[in-house]
Amino acid sequence: MPTLGVARIQRVCSLAFLAMKLQESVGEGVTEVQPGDHVIPCYQAECGECKFCKSGKTNLCGKVRAATGVGVMMNDRKSRFSVNGKPIYHFMGTSTFSQYTVVHDVSVAKIDPKAPLEKVCLLGCGVPTGLGAVWNTAKVESGSIVAVFGLGTVGLAVAEGAKAAGASRIIGIDIDSKKFDRAKDFGVTEFVNPTEHDKPIQQVLVDLTDGGVDYSFECIGNVSVMRAALECCHKGWGTSVIVGVAASGQEISTRPFQLVTGRVWKGTAFGGFKSRSQVPWLVDKYLKKEIKVDEYITHNLTLGEINEAFHLLHGGDCLRCVLSMD
Amino acid sequence: MPTLGVARIQRVCSLAFLAMKLQESVGEGVTEVQPGDHVIPCYQAECGECKFCKSGKTNLCGKVRAATGVGVMMNDRKSRFSVNGKPIYHFMGTSTFSQYTVVHDVSVAKIDPKAPLEKVCLLGCGVPTGLGAVWNTAKVESGSIVAVFGLGTVGLAVAEGAKAAGASRIIGIDIDSKKFDRAKDFGVTEFVNPTEHDKPIQQVLVDLTDGGVDYSFECIGNVSVMRAALECCHKGWGTSVIVGVAASGQEISTRPFQLVTGRVWKGTAFGGFKSRSQVPWLVDKYLKKEIKVDEYITHNLTLGEINEAFHLLHGGDCLRCVLSMD
Ligand SMILES: NC(=O)c1ccc[n+]([C@@H]2O[C@H](COP(=O)([O-])OP(=O)(O)OC[C@H]3O[C@@H](n4cnc5c(N)ncnc54)[C@H](O)[C@@H]3O)[C@@H](O)[C@H]2O)c1
Ligand SMILES: NC(=O)c1ccc[n+]([C@@H]2O[C@H](COP(=O)([O-])OP(=O)(O)OC[C@H]3O[C@@H](n4cnc5c(N)ncnc54)[C@H](O)[C@@H]3O)[C@@H](O)[C@H]2O)c1
Repeated sequence: MPTLGVARIQRVCSLAFLAMKLQESVGEGVTEVQPGDHVIPCYQAECGECKFCKSGKTNLCGKVRAATGVGVMMNDRKSRFSVNGKPIYHFMGTSTFSQYTVVHDVSVAKIDPKAPLEKVCLLGCGVPTGLGAVWNTAKVESGSIVAVFGLGTVGLAVAEGAKAAGASRIIGIDIDSKKFDRAKDFGVTEFVNPTEHDKPIQQVLVDLTDGGVDYSFECIGNVSVMRAALECCHKGWGTSVIVGVAASGQEISTRPFQLVTGRVWKGTAFGGFKSRSQVPWLVDKYLKKEIKVDEYITHNLTLGEINEAFHLLHGGDCLRCVLSMD
Repeated sequence: MPTLGVARIQRVCSLAFLAMKLQESVGEGVTEVQPGDHVIPCYQAECGECKFCKSGKTNLCGKVRAATGVGVMMNDRKSRFSVNGKPIYHFMGTSTFSQYTVVHDVSVAKIDPKAPLEKVCLLGCGVPTGLGAVWNTAKVESGSIVAVFGLGTVGLAVAEGAKAAGASRIIGIDIDSKKFDRAKDFGVTEFVNPTEHDKPIQQVLVDLTDGGVDYSFECIGNVSVMRAALECCHKGWGTSVIVGVAASGQEISTRPFQLVTGRVWKGTAFGGFKSRSQVPWLVDKYLKKEIKVDEYITHNLTLGEINEAFHLLHGGDCLRCVLSMD
């Protein structure tokens, strides 16, 4: 398994692990990137060779999963980070809260060097996830009624994707009403705050839409909302996509009759986008002003201020905060 | 709402409510069937006009649902059956355990009169459900690995449908090993009895298939098996279809990560077939020997022996028992 050598990090997007880097050096056997290339490290690899990549049915490459899942590199099952001689494990195959990192060659997408690194770093996670949930996983058609649960970056990207797909109504649901104003700019046409209703939110939506929505997206990570998102779908065809990541051990449930009567329950990881082949395409779409990126960046801080960045994210005013490594 | 008049029942298929009838008379405003026509009454109506029928996305016609769901006719919300002056309610829109019945015009499929009534009565429920779960709901492709949970009539029809679709492996799962021999004739290529394994059945199947099956079908009505059927699907694309009907109040559950990593959870009612337009097509396929029907009929009794028929069904040797009305 050839691995990329040390790569100098230029920017880090705050939520979790997204980064934009300039390639500094490449390891033995690496052919598709060169020192100096602009790349986005991707937590979802793409090797093009494994059963998953070859299937044509999924973006979940299996090649380096066994290593990235436990924070090491494939070839020697060891970490490339240490502090005072003690290993520090890699994180999600990218380890981007760091000025330098080492990643597998199958985990970087080479992008147009004209793209501003401090913006397109967002195309490594939440924005493609929301767009792809609509375009790749649900395949929303023009005229559809869409419900988006949770109006953070992922939910807003779902709204943006649904608007681009021609949805006739995009209903945003959030317990924080101050999310609503901003959401209009991303395509949301109506708002519902579940805390302002006595009825279960699924019933509120079924009533509002004469039987249910065509597509719903859970962008929170709350298993009760995942159930509501399924149950607000229209009988016969409504499709619900789970995007949010629930706390470990939690389970979703519903009556099987919900599915027997035609609803479909799906999920998405990175919006179904193949990282190395499609992130560069998303960067190009951004350069052509076909998708938003700047609008999701509400704050800019430095790596030294990372704890403040997390604080901001939890606060609810911040969508994405870009960390500069300088 | 025009309704069909009294129709003389010729045959009843034992499981629940399926019948084949000769039309005896038609009510005012009924134009698509005439006295003397051969028809199959269908619990799933098809009006061609409602939101559901027009959507092109589902077979779940909504036109008479509000009445058939509570056992009455649409026009006067009353029953057409009585005993000693007390009303007896209709059953699932067909009420076929009876020599005569009254059904809505949207609930009968007119078929080729050359078809033997005492055979094609099966095309009103379980056999189309299994075939359609594969062809319409899952859309199984050639080369797929398929798991079928439960090898009764519905599960065997799934196997038959999967074989016709070109599945490379069809794994039958049943707790009753005597189901296995017969299942070979319907296309099942391998058998697993969960009671002979210590590991959970989903793990047994994942091990047997290098990561999971492409499609699974629950044809029992057991919510734990529904979970296993989802979880034995391959990461990235495996699709599980719930066909079995669970006891009321029971719920399905799983970890949401199962869906986020690409599995899809669906269900089917009457295999997604549109009753009035597609049951006649299934009858034609039977006449051309393209689908089995006779092979699912293991017993023939009379209406007077109906309790014995139910006993046989519960026993496990019987697939379908046709009741003669003579
Ligand atoms: N599947 C993937 O590949 C993938 C990728 C990226 C992010 N995610 C997940 O997507 C989710 C959303 O990410 P984000 O960055 O947009 O998060 P966020 O915290 O910015 O947004 C969540 C929003 O949900 C709202 N909310 C919370 N509880 C609610 C409830 N009960 N009902 C309605 N609204 C509620 C919050 O007010 C907030 O606006 C997270 O769980 C994240 O882990 C998944
Ligand atoms: N969705 C629909 O439109 C539709 C239509 C018709 C029938 N159904 C449902 O389909 C189901 C199957 O119908 P059928 O007539 O084939 O039933 P059946 O009783 O003849 O077959 C069920 C089979 O499952 C096996 N089984 C029971 N428990 C099991 C377990 N834990 N693991 C593995 N196998 C197990 C039994 O041994 C039997 O062979 C029923 O629930 C029925 O209500 C649904």
